[in-house]
Amino acid sequence: MIIIGERINGTFTNVRQAIAEKDKKVIQELARQQTDAGAAYLDVNIGTAAADQEGAVQWLVETIQETCATPLCLDSQKPAVIKAGLKVINAANGVILNSTPLNKKSDEEILFKYIAMAQEAGAKAGIIALTMDKNGVPNDVDTRVAIAAEIVSKAAEKGFDTQRLFIDPIVLPVKVPNAQVQPGSILTAMDQIRYLSDPPPHITIGLSNLSQGATERSPINRVFLTMAISHGLDSAILDVLDENLMNELATAEMLMNKQIYSDSFLRVYKTANR
Amino acid sequence: MIIIGERINGTFTNVRQAIAEKDKKVIQELARQQTDAGAAYLDVNIGTAAADQEGAVQWLVETIQETCATPLCLDSQKPAVIKAGLKVINAANGVILNSTPLNKKSDEEILFKYIAMAQEAGAKAGIIALTMDKNGVPNDVDTRVAIAAEIVSKAAEKGFDTQRLFIDPIVLPVKVPNAQVQPGSILTAMDQIRYLSDPPPHITIGLSNLSQGATERSPINRVFLTMAISHGLDSAILDVLDENLMNELATAEMLMNKQIYSDSFLRVYKTANR
Repeated sequence: MIIIGERINGTFTNVRQAIAEKDKKVIQELARQQTDAGAAYLDVNIGTAAADQEGAVQWLVETIQETCATPLCLDSQKPAVIKAGLKVINAANGVILNSTPLNKKSDEEILFKYIAMAQEAGAKAGIIALTMDKNGVPNDVDTRVAIAAEIVSKAAEKGFDTQRLFIDPIVLPVKVPNAQVQPGSILTAMDQIRYLSDPPPHITIGLSNLSQGATERSPINRVFLTMAISHGLDSAILDVLDENLMNELATAEMLMNKQIYSDSFLRVYKTANR
Repeated sequence: MIIIGERINGTFTNVRQAIAEKDKKVIQELARQQTDAGAAYLDVNIGTAAADQEGAVQWLVETIQETCATPLCLDSQKPAVIKAGLKVINAANGVILNSTPLNKKSDEEILFKYIAMAQEAGAKAGIIALTMDKNGVPNDVDTRVAIAAEIVSKAAEKGFDTQRLFIDPIVLPVKVPNAQVQPGSILTAMDQIRYLSDPPPHITIGLSNLSQGATERSPINRVFLTMAISHGLDSAILDVLDENLMNELATAEMLMNKQIYSDSFLRVYKTANR
């Protein structure tokens, strides 16, 4: 499981404030805490926390890199922001560019832009591609799978290794009724995406989006995560500081035979991911 | 989800002792507690707690029926014990006969015996059939699915409604290494069993067996349960008194759209199942 820590995100009040005040301590503590808790990558998302997003992403990247070597996941749908981040990043250990749709009304070639940036960033650079296109997020599962297939095919066309490609089938908040796309149908999409190629692309989700606005966020997140792991999910952007979530993630990995059972499997998982 | 409470089982020390001493209080309290916690059926299993299993099952059934009307799940692989239980049971609200293999070396027709007993017990009587045959529990998934198919077909041959049939693909303790049958492959079996007929048979498991002897029993049980619900499991024999398990079960049902989301979905689920 490739775990991406979600906490360095400008939508969190403490992060927004730290960006505004250039307060390194808050950011560096979040970087260390998430690394200690098992994050393989740290998501870096400015959100709307700064007018100068390119400057802000560079400050965040440099601030994090002063304190730890955990690879980063640059999170912006603006190629210019990703490009600015890449200028100061140490991509030797890997980097993920997060995220691009297949195409956009105003920018047909946006997927190719992300692929080109990743190829320039080195052999360990990946991208997250969303199963959406110029019409936005599809209101059904079949179109999502069709878009995923097109993304995999276009990546292959550019010689981009499928194993550096993360497909995000997009979970929507369960609190917002949606007749066509239930969480269960996202699991069906995963069942199909993992057979698009061999080896398959990674499958990832922004887990916390599912419980946005809900009362019981942690149980919703962890139950869907473990279900999804049994349908081929092998990466997620999540709250790595949620200990219950991480314990159930470890249990799911063990039950799916990604980790051998031992009486101390929870402790072994923590140690292995530190 | 058809929840069968597992606690009235002679392998638990307090139940064994209650059977030996004919102590009604312990049994009746377990019956009420499990009913309050959401059990639709109460499993009744003597185990090795009494030499006279037929007498013991009758005493248990009568003792439970004095205190509540929750339908029972008679749990024995001996037809004579089931028959004894049925003599004193009130089967009007339903009863489940648990469990029969497809066939046995010494008794080729055991499935038909359970079907006949269920048919005699009334329109609401179901049976749990294990995906095992005269060779025992198969060491692979494909044979389990093949046995399930044969069970469904033989039930149809006897005019036994598929919707009264519960197929148990048999989870084994995760602590005991088994190269062929991982918990993940049981999920694959479920994916197939639910397409054996339309409407499909119910799929059930003896959940706690999975964590037998393990250190982290509750997380193992609840993670596998929620995964299995996303693969078509619609019944389980489980510890209905484990509140974390029941909350995650409710969350899984909501995520699979078996219950509509509301901010109070956990409370709604509890109330609906009482």
